[in-house]
Amino acid sequence: MGKGERKQEGERLTLTVRQLAEMLGCPFEGDGEVRIRDVSSLEMAGEGDIVFLGQAKLRKKLEETRASAAIIPPGESFRRIPVLIAENPQLAFVRAVEIFFKPYRLEPGVHPSAQVAPTAKLGKDVAVGALSVVGDDAEIGEGTIIFPLVIIYPRVKIGEGAVIHSHVSIREGVRVGNRVIIHNGAVIGSDGFGYIKMENGSYRKIPQKGTVVIEDDVEIGANTAVDRAALGETLIRRGVKIDNLVQVAHNVEIGENAILTGQVGIAGSSRVGKNVVMGGQAGVADHVNVGDNATIAAQSGIHKDIPAGAIVAGTPHLDIREAAKIWALMPQLHDFVKDMKRLKARVEELEKLIKNKS
Amino acid sequence: MGKGERKQEGERLTLTVRQLAEMLGCPFEGDGEVRIRDVSSLEMAGEGDIVFLGQAKLRKKLEETRASAAIIPPGESFRRIPVLIAENPQLAFVRAVEIFFKPYRLEPGVHPSAQVAPTAKLGKDVAVGALSVVGDDAEIGEGTIIFPLVIIYPRVKIGEGAVIHSHVSIREGVRVGNRVIIHNGAVIGSDGFGYIKMENGSYRKIPQKGTVVIEDDVEIGANTAVDRAALGETLIRRGVKIDNLVQVAHNVEIGENAILTGQVGIAGSSRVGKNVVMGGQAGVADHVNVGDNATIAAQSGIHKDIPAGAIVAGTPHLDIREAAKIWALMPQLHDFVKDMKRLKARVEELEKLIKNKS
Amino acid sequence: MGKGERKQEGERLTLTVRQLAEMLGCPFEGDGEVRIRDVSSLEMAGEGDIVFLGQAKLRKKLEETRASAAIIPPGESFRRIPVLIAENPQLAFVRAVEIFFKPYRLEPGVHPSAQVAPTAKLGKDVAVGALSVVGDDAEIGEGTIIFPLVIIYPRVKIGEGAVIHSHVSIREGVRVGNRVIIHNGAVIGSDGFGYIKMENGSYRKIPQKGTVVIEDDVEIGANTAVDRAALGETLIRRGVKIDNLVQVAHNVEIGENAILTGQVGIAGSSRVGKNVVMGGQAGVADHVNVGDNATIAAQSGIHKDIPAGAIVAGTPHLDIREAAKIWALMPQLHDFVKDMKRLKARVEELEKLIKNKS
Repeated sequence: MGKGERKQEGERLTLTVRQLAEMLGCPFEGDGEVRIRDVSSLEMAGEGDIVFLGQAKLRKKLEETRASAAIIPPGESFRRIPVLIAENPQLAFVRAVEIFFKPYRLEPGVHPSAQVAPTAKLGKDVAVGALSVVGDDAEIGEGTIIFPLVIIYPRVKIGEGAVIHSHVSIREGVRVGNRVIIHNGAVIGSDGFGYIKMENGSYRKIPQKGTVVIEDDVEIGANTAVDRAALGETLIRRGVKIDNLVQVAHNVEIGENAILTGQVGIAGSSRVGKNVVMGGQAGVADHVNVGDNATIAAQSGIHKDIPAGAIVAGTPHLDIREAAKIWALMPQLHDFVKDMKRLKARVEELEKLIKNKS
Repeated sequence: MGKGERKQEGERLTLTVRQLAEMLGCPFEGDGEVRIRDVSSLEMAGEGDIVFLGQAKLRKKLEETRASAAIIPPGESFRRIPVLIAENPQLAFVRAVEIFFKPYRLEPGVHPSAQVAPTAKLGKDVAVGALSVVGDDAEIGEGTIIFPLVIIYPRVKIGEGAVIHSHVSIREGVRVGNRVIIHNGAVIGSDGFGYIKMENGSYRKIPQKGTVVIEDDVEIGANTAVDRAALGETLIRRGVKIDNLVQVAHNVEIGENAILTGQVGIAGSSRVGKNVVMGGQAGVADHVNVGDNATIAAQSGIHKDIPAGAIVAGTPHLDIREAAKIWALMPQLHDFVKDMKRLKARVEELEKLIKNKS
Repeated sequence: MGKGERKQEGERLTLTVRQLAEMLGCPFEGDGEVRIRDVSSLEMAGEGDIVFLGQAKLRKKLEETRASAAIIPPGESFRRIPVLIAENPQLAFVRAVEIFFKPYRLEPGVHPSAQVAPTAKLGKDVAVGALSVVGDDAEIGEGTIIFPLVIIYPRVKIGEGAVIHSHVSIREGVRVGNRVIIHNGAVIGSDGFGYIKMENGSYRKIPQKGTVVIEDDVEIGANTAVDRAALGETLIRRGVKIDNLVQVAHNVEIGENAILTGQVGIAGSSRVGKNVVMGGQAGVADHVNVGDNATIAAQSGIHKDIPAGAIVAGTPHLDIREAAKIWALMPQLHDFVKDMKRLKARVEELEKLIKNKS
């Protein structure tokens, strides 16, 4: 097993219900000696699997499951198979997944085909996969895994325990925090889109001198792009989760624990507050401030500031209650217009009648 | 010519009209000895080119073309140059394109700079290009071509006759069928976007333990992302065609022969039926069922189930006939509202008149 | 310092205000001996930085800046620190940025780990970074920089002074002009999305025999995709600027100096005129003609031709003035409908009154 190659997959782990319950800190009922070897969904489970009941409406599927054990909430009476009782069954299940399933990672070490600059500093137990490039003066923190075919441009700093998947580009001078996960094909630190219009109609590039800072515990999806700032930093704060194919333009700031789902776009210099949730394909125009805890429906277009806690939808966006009223009206609009035209005719008739009487 | 390098481009093929007509199984009229060396469009054709008449409205362009032969439908009287007569001229033309034009491919063999794990199994006549990585226990079927700079993570299975372009990432354990084409930069099997919200507002990652299955004859566009399932499979069924920059989230199923055009997004656990056609930038929300044979207009937002055969448009989506009525009304809406305000004044006037008379 | 590696970063440049003013061709006022070492924004500047006043409304920030000098427009009276006076302060500032900031580039030369075909032709001072692939018969013009992990397929031609970032794919036969910049992960020349529907419901691929031509001075953003033509060329004309994650389909033509911002999509065979500006996530349907100098608002859907100079918004698009009227009405629509229902009741009442009187 060479360096920078995959971890040996060991024997499959088997735990009794009793052992698993102890590891999860949950009480259990039923046969504690039943053996659990994997996690599964209610529909697909078989012998040796543990499942969970996340919503009361899935109870029927629970009754029909072929799993060997289930994680259920306190009020639930189901006992056909051994059960673990958890306040948050989904969370307990996720911890069970983490026990039985280890995502594919590389062993520490630098693959001989990787191109690591002599001036780069690699922490303890760093893995650099085959055919990856680590540039001059880059710093990679302890335990971070760089998959094959990654490019780390010079002067990049990556924290500890990060995972950088194949075909990611991290451009010069970008800073990436601890435990950050970046999926395949994402680009961090490409030039922001900035030009001056010249008198002859052509555009002159504004050099993008700034950088990107990704704080700890951020996850960035496949083929997402985060541009470097013109001056200063594009900033993705701690705990932000970004899905695939998202565009984050230069000088944007995304607040702590915000969620940007697939194909969202944030234009230049905008600020998205903490805990904001944006639905798929939604967009925020440039120089806009999205308040903390706001929720933005899928495909919305945010053209101006929205206050903290707002829930908005539509292009241009409206308060969700206004938008919902409009959506309800739309299918009736045609009939309404016809109705009003008839009303107009009736008013004309009345006017004639009155006039004739006068 | 080294292994894993390009095929030698041979002498250019020349066929007579008679030979080409035989190969395509079409009758011809005119000089069967005219020599054809290439295919072209009506506008750009020159001597030696064959063209086709796809729509009657292009007849004028056919009359002006400098091509040496044309493929025309049975009813067409044009005879200025030799003609091949085909029930489906476009299909006959595509077959002619396939005769004269061979897309660039690699010669079988593994390039010496590629990193292929000793435990990977390569079928007969597989090509692995320069600087590609094939992980442990991966299986690549006969005749499949892996272009340079591709990453195949461990335990991936790819069928026969597939074409994987440069900078594609195929993540651990993904299964890809026969004759699948994946264009540059696409990512298959990145983690699904799944988190549990914790009490302190942060998100905990739900491990994405599942995989992706791509059935036979699928084509996937450049920089498209298809996420692996949380549990189970994300499933792209036989014959599906996916354009560039499309997002397919975890646990989605796309039915046979569905068409997802550029920048479409499908959120988690949704099912798109067979033969569905989605226009560009359209989106489907999570846990939604799109019925077989449905058609979804560009930029639509599908927020709830739509029945088989439905044709829908808009965000939130409406039946296309309702949507079309609304679109027709929109430009008149402002005048209509003004008109109604005047009507209201007239009614007030009438009310006064009546009241005064009483 | 090996070939194809980074340029040595020299000593930091220091200029006096007088020297900088001379280089920019601007008059200055105040102490010409003040030393300038960098550019910055009004907020972030410190000692040794020069800033600029782009908009009158930022004057307060100028007064508070800690910069050592400022570029201001002719009418501006601010003199607290040395000032350079420029007709276009932003343009003068950009030229100052170019003086103090050199973006990271590679030294000329071919990195020993790169795979360059013996038949490829590299101009003077070309750089090919680590682990890049340059295919047979490719031609790279003088001074062009190919970053690491790039794939240049066979027969590609790239002009002089171009910059191709890591993980870019340039497919077979594509032509790229002088001074073109292509950011990470972009794909140029992937197959267009073209199929014939067969009688059994499956789709048969139409071979994409054409190519892509990128003229001089184009910039293309990260993870953008530009498809090759079915026949002929997809054409990106001189000076076009394309942002990240943009989709340009086969046989499209983008006119000179057009601007396509993030996540824009242009469907097959459409033509976007010169100087057009498209906002983020806007889309153009297939076979549509967008006239020169048109402006398209973010998220608009262009379903049919628009004339030169048009300003449009919405899906389906409307003239911006009509769209703005509708946006203004939308929040009132619900009340308006209720109002009209009351009006209808009043008319019915009037009708009864009249009838009773008759």
